[in-house]
Amino acid sequence: MNLLDGKIVSQAVKDRLKAQTEERMLNGKKVPHLAAILIGNNGASETYVASKVKSCAEVGFKSTLIRFDEDVTEQNLIFKLTELNEDFDIDGILVQLPLPKHISEQKVIETIYPEKDVDGFHPESVGRMVQGLPAYYPATPYGILLMLAHYKIETKGKHAVVIGRSNIVGRPISIMLSKNEYPGNCTVTVCHSHTHNLKEICLQADIIVAALGIPEFLKADMVKEGVVIVDVGITRVIDETKKSGFSIKGDVDFKEVAPKCSFITPVPGGVGPMTIAALMMNTFKACEAKD
Amino acid sequence: MNLLDGKIVSQAVKDRLKAQTEERMLNGKKVPHLAAILIGNNGASETYVASKVKSCAEVGFKSTLIRFDEDVTEQNLIFKLTELNEDFDIDGILVQLPLPKHISEQKVIETIYPEKDVDGFHPESVGRMVQGLPAYYPATPYGILLMLAHYKIETKGKHAVVIGRSNIVGRPISIMLSKNEYPGNCTVTVCHSHTHNLKEICLQADIIVAALGIPEFLKADMVKEGVVIVDVGITRVIDETKKSGFSIKGDVDFKEVAPKCSFITPVPGGVGPMTIAALMMNTFKACEAKD
Repeated sequence: MNLLDGKIVSQAVKDRLKAQTEERMLNGKKVPHLAAILIGNNGASETYVASKVKSCAEVGFKSTLIRFDEDVTEQNLIFKLTELNEDFDIDGILVQLPLPKHISEQKVIETIYPEKDVDGFHPESVGRMVQGLPAYYPATPYGILLMLAHYKIETKGKHAVVIGRSNIVGRPISIMLSKNEYPGNCTVTVCHSHTHNLKEICLQADIIVAALGIPEFLKADMVKEGVVIVDVGITRVIDETKKSGFSIKGDVDFKEVAPKCSFITPVPGGVGPMTIAALMMNTFKACEAKD
Repeated sequence: MNLLDGKIVSQAVKDRLKAQTEERMLNGKKVPHLAAILIGNNGASETYVASKVKSCAEVGFKSTLIRFDEDVTEQNLIFKLTELNEDFDIDGILVQLPLPKHISEQKVIETIYPEKDVDGFHPESVGRMVQGLPAYYPATPYGILLMLAHYKIETKGKHAVVIGRSNIVGRPISIMLSKNEYPGNCTVTVCHSHTHNLKEICLQADIIVAALGIPEFLKADMVKEGVVIVDVGITRVIDETKKSGFSIKGDVDFKEVAPKCSFITPVPGGVGPMTIAALMMNTFKACEAKD
């Protein structure tokens, strides 16, 4: 059993980006610049945005953090996005989700120009990805591809089973893995809450992406020897043995499943760190596209 | 074995649209209006556009056919599309494909406003479909859904196997069938040229959509008893027993497979006629959206 180590891979991606950014500077080219919008004081959102800003600094990107109070109007937010859309120096724009209830997430996402949509959430970004046009892949599934590529996991002709069909992970990764590229060219089965014979299907899988959000759902008797498992789940469960009072669980029962795997992501430290690396990749590409 | 009869279903869809259009007229509401652009003198394109225009007349829609010579410039075509985009009376715009080589298909498709993109080919239409937002579904896969719905085929929890991953059929139908709606909620497996164990996978299928473009590819020993088969293939093969010198073959070896099926589409007369019915549905919806 080998770990698909998100910390190592995200560091490798960031090291590469850092070198490429230095090269751009040496050649007098534009340095990538990410604008992040944070609304209110949600603790998790604060943490996520802080690590995105920190990652920008690590790889040599510029970043601009824009904060709004919880009660910002939708109009003011949209106005700011319009400004950022028109600002040549800004390559990528992200709005940290979730938004306060009085603001339409969809409207906000669709305001961002697709060419600056480094989160890959705009319908046009999704459509372009599906159709095989150049596009920003959404960060979590893109991070999974970067991880599979780093470990040179063979995907062509493999049977990949994706558990979950969310817009953020399950749906896009199922599409990406079946595209005619690497990583990809898998035979892909999408499973969800209405799937009857999940165990039988998982037992056929060479690759499983678990993205359903039920802690320790996938058990050892549901997978075959040598499977590659990517665990996207990240749920806090009460754990009185921990000082914090909780522990983080993936969708895979790691302890019993890992021994059967050829490769498996740990939780935490698997897919999680890859998301930001993928965001950095998209921001770099958005900048490059202007050359 | 029962036929999924595209002629019957498309007629039923058109009858319903005709009644709904009459009702709109009685209520003083706008009548749907489709603009079709035809370039050059390709025989097949002429035939397709003619039946679209004829279908509009049948259901009481207005239609405008705009013809360009083979040597029309991309600029002139785009200018016309811009005009149609801005014309309030036009609800849906379609450009009959393929286009002459000097014109970028992608550019033309992306010029059409997504709200008038009744062919559902614009990346934004595709993205909205994937994300579960209101969207025009591309005509052929939408026609398949209309057919499954007409025959009240149970899809929830069924294993659907889609053979082919084209942007026009395989990819979108695989997404639609796994969405949380009816027809949908299938466990969906997407197969393609790199799939190793296609037979084994097809044998598990409750529903098969064959969209790979190889005549009579699917044989009886590849399907289980009671399967529902949708055959999207339509290939001309030389047939000296026919007066025309050719016959039309689907991707399914109908003669040997049909006896095992609970439902199967014939070719021709299955999916084919549904495509235009789906286009009429989209045009009606585009008009309704303006109410």
